[in-house]
Amino acid sequence: MAEGNDYVNELTDQEDNFSRWYTDVVRKAKLADYTPVRGSMVIRPYGYALWENMQALLDRRFKETGHVNAYFPLLVPESLLQKEAEHVEGFAPEVAWVTHAGQNKLEERYCIRPTSEAIIGDIYSKWIDSWRDLPVLINQWANVMRWEKVTRLFLRTAEFLWQEGHTVHATEAEAEEETLKMLGVYQDFIETELAVPVWAGRKTEKEKFAGALRTYSVEALMRDGKALQAGTSHNLGQHFAKVFDITFQDRDGVRKHAWQTSWGVSTRLIGALIMAHGDDNGLMLPPNVAPIQVVVVPIWRKEEDKAAVLEMVDQVVGLLRPVCRIQADTDDNNTPGWKYNEYEMKGVPLRLEIGPRDVQNQSVVLVRRLDRKKEFVPVAEIAARVPELLKEVQQALFQRALDFREQNTHAVKTWAEFTEIFPLREVGQEAPEGSKRGFVWANWCGETSCEQAVQDTTKATIRCMPQDRPAPDGPCVRCGGEGKERVLFAKAY
Amino acid sequence: MAEGNDYVNELTDQEDNFSRWYTDVVRKAKLADYTPVRGSMVIRPYGYALWENMQALLDRRFKETGHVNAYFPLLVPESLLQKEAEHVEGFAPEVAWVTHAGQNKLEERYCIRPTSEAIIGDIYSKWIDSWRDLPVLINQWANVMRWEKVTRLFLRTAEFLWQEGHTVHATEAEAEEETLKMLGVYQDFIETELAVPVWAGRKTEKEKFAGALRTYSVEALMRDGKALQAGTSHNLGQHFAKVFDITFQDRDGVRKHAWQTSWGVSTRLIGALIMAHGDDNGLMLPPNVAPIQVVVVPIWRKEEDKAAVLEMVDQVVGLLRPVCRIQADTDDNNTPGWKYNEYEMKGVPLRLEIGPRDVQNQSVVLVRRLDRKKEFVPVAEIAARVPELLKEVQQALFQRALDFREQNTHAVKTWAEFTEIFPLREVGQEAPEGSKRGFVWANWCGETSCEQAVQDTTKATIRCMPQDRPAPDGPCVRCGGEGKERVLFAKAY
Repeated sequence: MAEGNDYVNELTDQEDNFSRWYTDVVRKAKLADYTPVRGSMVIRPYGYALWENMQALLDRRFKETGHVNAYFPLLVPESLLQKEAEHVEGFAPEVAWVTHAGQNKLEERYCIRPTSEAIIGDIYSKWIDSWRDLPVLINQWANVMRWEKVTRLFLRTAEFLWQEGHTVHATEAEAEEETLKMLGVYQDFIETELAVPVWAGRKTEKEKFAGALRTYSVEALMRDGKALQAGTSHNLGQHFAKVFDITFQDRDGVRKHAWQTSWGVSTRLIGALIMAHGDDNGLMLPPNVAPIQVVVVPIWRKEEDKAAVLEMVDQVVGLLRPVCRIQADTDDNNTPGWKYNEYEMKGVPLRLEIGPRDVQNQSVVLVRRLDRKKEFVPVAEIAARVPELLKEVQQALFQRALDFREQNTHAVKTWAEFTEIFPLREVGQEAPEGSKRGFVWANWCGETSCEQAVQDTTKATIRCMPQDRPAPDGPCVRCGGEGKERVLFAKAY
Repeated sequence: MAEGNDYVNELTDQEDNFSRWYTDVVRKAKLADYTPVRGSMVIRPYGYALWENMQALLDRRFKETGHVNAYFPLLVPESLLQKEAEHVEGFAPEVAWVTHAGQNKLEERYCIRPTSEAIIGDIYSKWIDSWRDLPVLINQWANVMRWEKVTRLFLRTAEFLWQEGHTVHATEAEAEEETLKMLGVYQDFIETELAVPVWAGRKTEKEKFAGALRTYSVEALMRDGKALQAGTSHNLGQHFAKVFDITFQDRDGVRKHAWQTSWGVSTRLIGALIMAHGDDNGLMLPPNVAPIQVVVVPIWRKEEDKAAVLEMVDQVVGLLRPVCRIQADTDDNNTPGWKYNEYEMKGVPLRLEIGPRDVQNQSVVLVRRLDRKKEFVPVAEIAARVPELLKEVQQALFQRALDFREQNTHAVKTWAEFTEIFPLREVGQEAPEGSKRGFVWANWCGETSCEQAVQDTTKATIRCMPQDRPAPDGPCVRCGGEGKERVLFAKAY
């Protein structure tokens, strides 16, 4: 709040240093900030309002697909975390341990949940007894903690907010259906509401969730050409059911282990949003989730114009409040130019300007954040025009991101082509400015060793194997062995 | 889910053992349950749906009074918690300490927030610089942890969910105005939506929040005659501003310490709801927050009637879904009688019965949970009648609770009268069945020593000093010294 008037100009350009641009934007737009707790952020009101809008749109989708919310404990007893071998191996190195309460040392340590499969598995084992109790379709909105070494606001923080769905089914087929259904919910939410196109597909064995049978993810492309995993959906098989003894009496009278899924998205999605749409002027928020969809900026030079302009501001706000999230900035201390910069930084999709001439003409100027395209709209038409324009902007943002992804997706056949896009690390090569980058379709032999070799030499990883992927059309890009899958590579966050 | 058919009959009567009745109801209605984490509960979907409804109605009130939401870190560095002396003394004995991350011992311990004044105070000190930055009106919805020795579902658990408002103001008067405004918001919410009448007033010095200048609370009466503190609002004065260095440049150019407030309600409110309205058949939920407002129970004996009854169920649900939260229970495995018990246990305000005769008459039977009062309503009128009836039930529940409170509020002048209601502990006396109990108005000298003596001998405490309390009309009920305040005593949760 103490920043100077021209702080917007101090924003780093994306081309100069994308990572610094990102942190600058998060802080200058007041989405989030650092705290004295190592690796933990504070989500400021503007960022949290964005999250609330995202939550509402996601939660509605969860409920429409038959899910209900619940709340499970923050702490997980160490003995429960250790039950599933892969799970504990995956998470134990990065959990925070509670060892004392007040002055007393605890008999057993608890970790702060890094995810809740273990505690929920134990609780479900007590709730489930018969096929009549299935399916269990529960989601929780919660905070989780993973003590990451390197953190970045929204993208990777020690504590973050997320939702985690945990479902239980009678058959493997139902569990797989649920896993894919929720993957589809994520894709629909991210593409429709966040205007970010994603690839939805299966993760490789190497990249799957610790303890899962199969993991699926949605993968988005950021404007620096790096991919970001935006959500995951896991078919847990019977792994947790077996160690937590989640069994049910089936219709045939036989007691069986249940089948489970889990799926989650987090405040990381805010990072995805920022990096998929933002530009050198700041954020660019999709109207469907923007806390402020329209900002009204009054303009006057002569004091005698002020009253009439402000009166029209009130009138316009009154007309538009029922149809959009609107805010008028009538603060005398800042110039209109300062406000233009401020709300561009904050990514507000539409700016509505009202000056003395607009009062005379009974029309307003609407300016799109996306491309600063202006239009003059009579006051009588704004309540109809603004919602249309918001829809147009939402659509245009998605199209822009899709175009960007298409321009930055390539199919390669050979290792030479592959390393032209993802230069070999050992030679310290960097991709030239404006070079190919982004997603790369390539054939793969299916071996983890090849996948690992690609990562070690180029930092590129297999992001996912989309459901509707093409068949392999040649040998493995790395080893030259038989190509068994056509997969999507990228460097990733 | 594995309970037998007649489990409802096994509910303990309130008169026999209120505390056991309470726990029975919470578990049988599937609001919450125990977990393997000491003192932590799981809030089950039905209980969480209730909490979501309460959250929505509260959040709307916070936003209408100008507040925004944000999210602050879960962990509080030990050095920050220790800055405010009274605060650390109040909370340090009951906090959970995080000492390790993965394999590594942390340089500084963190506690899991028992409340967030300390971490928020530190963060606010960085955000606030000028009078232009004030007021700061932020709320957060969060989990907190206090390692209580004795726990009870919803009422006192190690972890609980709550909201905590943290505001900053330029003057003492503004802070006091905010403190009282939010106390009023709580009173309005609890009385209007939860149908529970409360006394709103100031806490004594002894009972105030650790670190506050003044604490106010809302106090409700449970059906066993004990009071429950349902929410608190604190004027923090400059206590935290001084230790966390929250200063601002005022309009007069002078740098000053800011004035703060904090206020909160928690999932404890669910406990209040249960104990203020429930009866020997289970929960009784106010329609405004009930997850299911109307349950439809189809009734048929002959198989040939089934199709017509179910068709009418569909029709009725279609008519009512737009005007209320409705659910039809068409499960063949349970009898109508079992369902009556089940939804009475769950406190669903209205039951709608449809049998073959109702199909013929094109009318339905509506039964109020409150008093089982029945009415026959033509199908053509239900979409108008049901919302009316829900309003009537909401109002009747409030009136019933208010009547109960009035019957159980007494004014006393002497210690003899006082101890007739709150028998002396040392003689092991128990109040006879049906005796006076509840709130007691009495005069008090204002001395903490007297307040403590009353508590030690009778367990009764001063709940609050309501804003519109009568003037003292006699000597202190305990010591006989000058009566300086007329206050409300009760035994409390």
